[in-house]
Amino acid sequence: MNTRHLSDCVQTCMSCSLTCTACAAACLKEEHVEMMRECIQRCLDCADICQLCARMEQKQSPFMQEICELCAKACDYCAEECSQHQHEHCQQCAEACRRCAEECRKMAA
Amino acid sequence: MNTRHLSDCVQTCMSCSLTCTACAAACLKEEHVEMMRECIQRCLDCADICQLCARMEQKQSPFMQEICELCAKACDYCAEECSQHQHEHCQQCAEACRRCAEECRKMAA
Amino acid sequence: MNTRHLSDCVQTCMSCSLTCTACAAACLKEEHVEMMRECIQRCLDCADICQLCARMEQKQSPFMQEICELCAKACDYCAEECSQHQHEHCQQCAEACRRCAEECRKMAA
Amino acid sequence: MNTRHLSDCVQTCMSCSLTCTACAAACLKEEHVEMMRECIQRCLDCADICQLCARMEQKQSPFMQEICELCAKACDYCAEECSQHQHEHCQQCAEACRRCAEECRKMAA
Repeated sequence: MNTRHLSDCVQTCMSCSLTCTACAAACLKEEHVEMMRECIQRCLDCADICQLCARMEQKQSPFMQEICELCAKACDYCAEECSQHQHEHCQQCAEACRRCAEECRKMAA
Repeated sequence: MNTRHLSDCVQTCMSCSLTCTACAAACLKEEHVEMMRECIQRCLDCADICQLCARMEQKQSPFMQEICELCAKACDYCAEECSQHQHEHCQQCAEACRRCAEECRKMAA
Repeated sequence: MNTRHLSDCVQTCMSCSLTCTACAAACLKEEHVEMMRECIQRCLDCADICQLCARMEQKQSPFMQEICELCAKACDYCAEECSQHQHEHCQQCAEACRRCAEECRKMAA
Repeated sequence: MNTRHLSDCVQTCMSCSLTCTACAAACLKEEHVEMMRECIQRCLDCADICQLCARMEQKQSPFMQEICELCAKACDYCAEECSQHQHEHCQQCAEACRRCAEECRKMAA
């Protein structure tokens, strides 16, 4: 494994976790919150999984690759929903999730 | 400090964290989700703080007492909101939070 | 899925997470800490993964089953190491991990 | 509150959490691990508290300021110990903790 790539992936996961946390909080304040239920759920799950993934990568846990695989799926799932909403926070979150999914897949390979 | 009391408080915090997680998830599915925004926010904060509190107590961290104080406040704040909603999950959550606040205040004393 | 079984598994994961946290802290205080390095690492990983698993089960996340599978592996891995140490906290931790692995495998099935 | 400052503090907390996680893992592999017990404990506590702090700031939780205060103390406490060890990871961790304590104090003010 390439140390530089690992370090990039840690940053991407951490940043994605925080973007998802912010998106969930912002969705909860949207006028049509009843349209945002699924988005909030997926963002909260993704925030937790990305946070754990960053930590496991950071200490090069033997479970790192499996968590990266799972994290990539959680990111895809979150991006799928976020990308359907026009709010700027949702569009940014979808983008962060796609980037994170890609980095995690490279790491899991 | 009394070891039995510490162990009870760890259980109470952990259980409260999970009750708050379940309440937030259930609130998000309620018909009038626009009435539940504040409740979801407070439950999510409380879930995270209780979770950290249980862990810090479990390892008898030097920050245990300060986190117990903070946890008691987060529990009060969550109970204040949850108790105003008639959903069973909110009433149960308010009760769990009140018990947890009480245990944490004893621990912080 | 059986609701009672789910609720049992949440409790088992949460309890295992805290047992691992306590075992890591106790290992760090052992006289021959240089013998406990691997045990501490595995306990810390297992504590984090079990904690996330309990939360994901509690909200019936779509990632619940995959995290249960991963959690079962982390528990096996931790039990394998803990069971080789005679400290009471290690023996208890090995037992908690074996029980948790079993519950998580049922949940993932 | 200044939005730019908040965003800087989130990044600093997140980065400090990961630096502490890496330092604990590296300390555990040091030849004289018996000298690193206290350092590992403080790094693990600091990693968890910084992680929660970043998340609470990110969603502008009403508990943000109190957690920033607590986080500043955890960072000071960790820096105090890390700065006494010559390992590069300890020196870097002490520096990250000092920076984080300073940012968190500004945020809590």
